[in-house]
Amino acid sequence: MTYCLGVITRYGIVMAADSLTNAGVDYISNYQKLFNFSDPGDRVIVLCTAGNLSMSQGILALLRKDLKAQAEANLHTLPSMFEVARYIGQKTRQVLDENRTWLQQDKIEFQSSFLLGGQIKGEEPCLFLIYSQGNCLQATKETPFLQIGEAKYGKPILDRTLNYDIPLEDAAKCALLSIDSTMKSNISVGPPINMVMYEADSLLIRHQLRLPVGDPYLVKVRKYWEGALRKAFDHMPPLDWHDPQPNNFVPSPAFPDPTEAPVGSDIS
Amino acid sequence: MTYCLGVITRYGIVMAADSLTNAGVDYISNYQKLFNFSDPGDRVIVLCTAGNLSMSQGILALLRKDLKAQAEANLHTLPSMFEVARYIGQKTRQVLDENRTWLQQDKIEFQSSFLLGGQIKGEEPCLFLIYSQGNCLQATKETPFLQIGEAKYGKPILDRTLNYDIPLEDAAKCALLSIDSTMKSNISVGPPINMVMYEADSLLIRHQLRLPVGDPYLVKVRKYWEGALRKAFDHMPPLDWHDPQPNNFVPSPAFPDPTEAPVGSDIS
Repeated sequence: MTYCLGVITRYGIVMAADSLTNAGVDYISNYQKLFNFSDPGDRVIVLCTAGNLSMSQGILALLRKDLKAQAEANLHTLPSMFEVARYIGQKTRQVLDENRTWLQQDKIEFQSSFLLGGQIKGEEPCLFLIYSQGNCLQATKETPFLQIGEAKYGKPILDRTLNYDIPLEDAAKCALLSIDSTMKSNISVGPPINMVMYEADSLLIRHQLRLPVGDPYLVKVRKYWEGALRKAFDHMPPLDWHDPQPNNFVPSPAFPDPTEAPVGSDIS
Repeated sequence: MTYCLGVITRYGIVMAADSLTNAGVDYISNYQKLFNFSDPGDRVIVLCTAGNLSMSQGILALLRKDLKAQAEANLHTLPSMFEVARYIGQKTRQVLDENRTWLQQDKIEFQSSFLLGGQIKGEEPCLFLIYSQGNCLQATKETPFLQIGEAKYGKPILDRTLNYDIPLEDAAKCALLSIDSTMKSNISVGPPINMVMYEADSLLIRHQLRLPVGDPYLVKVRKYWEGALRKAFDHMPPLDWHDPQPNNFVPSPAFPDPTEAPVGSDIS
């Protein structure tokens, strides 16, 4: 599996991805899933990819082919991020259409989706999710993040802490913790973690990091975070237990017949 | 959906469940999913249920029927928690076998699973997951928790903070936060939250709570926790960014042909 996420705040964009790929549990390998297609000074374009690796590679190959051939429409000529998103969606449709029948008949998952983050000179920074069907969705101020792949484990920390106004460095810490939480809870997501932080209007990526297996910073952060959570328990308001008398519990003979009363002994 | 979890530590057991049930998104209702079948002084038996509500109710009805009829084997006569788990597994198989064909032919999800936690006099406390197939799995000291239902959102906080030696009250706080995280990230899991905390060897449940929608304690805890997480960011070791020169980024004409080089411009 894969886990990628993008965060947009008023100060810029953070994008991050794990690097583990698996076909079943007995074929696991590392593939980069975060790609920088920027043209510094004119535009920043960062892509993350999840889903069938062969499809994703095929789509990326088409994007590069257009760049190399200086096709009229390519990642460096299209005038807006929305058009870039639609263009990637078209390439996605093209590659999936070529392969769908063959993969489908063998029940192989062929979906492939992308996160696209960046900024084109003269526009605001923006963040898109390009679905495997080729349509796209833009992140908004209300929900300033998008995820693809194994998204559930890492969502609570985003839901609890992210908003459009937080400092970019905090958004990056949050993204890192979101990926680290996912890696800890699911072996199909794993390092190296690749992350970029893009400061709005700089039209250049100045901050990037790559954290391989056993990276001392990652070890330190994990230890720190677990300590911080445990400490937070200590100061959490004490639980407001009801303290029933033993005879408040319905004894066995009184368990109601389900045809007579609601199911179960009420514990409230 | 549903989210239930059980935690076992050397000091006892915590079990918790949400109360939301949905058939599609347009039929949502509240059903209790945590049931107390204890016989205080002799045994504590707490069940949580996830899956097809109709199946779960059918299984609970059989459990109660045996109790009422004082059948030779019932929740209050079986001599060990392992046998209680196997007995619930048998009832699960019975109810599912009766219904499987009819539900399957209409592609209706009919799985139903249980968490069973408690203690029988003379035994250690223990915690089981009873699968929809009727087999069961016991929690161990190495992984002292079990989950059923919508388990992914709430797993990271358990993975990061739980161990067999933590105080029972901390385990309860962790369980509550795990459910609250899930509720915040997934609308199919919702209040009231029911929770019990069982102190080992007491053979009696002294602590239980029920937190309905908008409960002031739940509101307070959520606010506290989000503040604590944000504060933890502030003290987190600063990210160790690489700070590349602009010309370290491969400019557009140099994007490699996928047939010649690894996919993508390396961001490391």
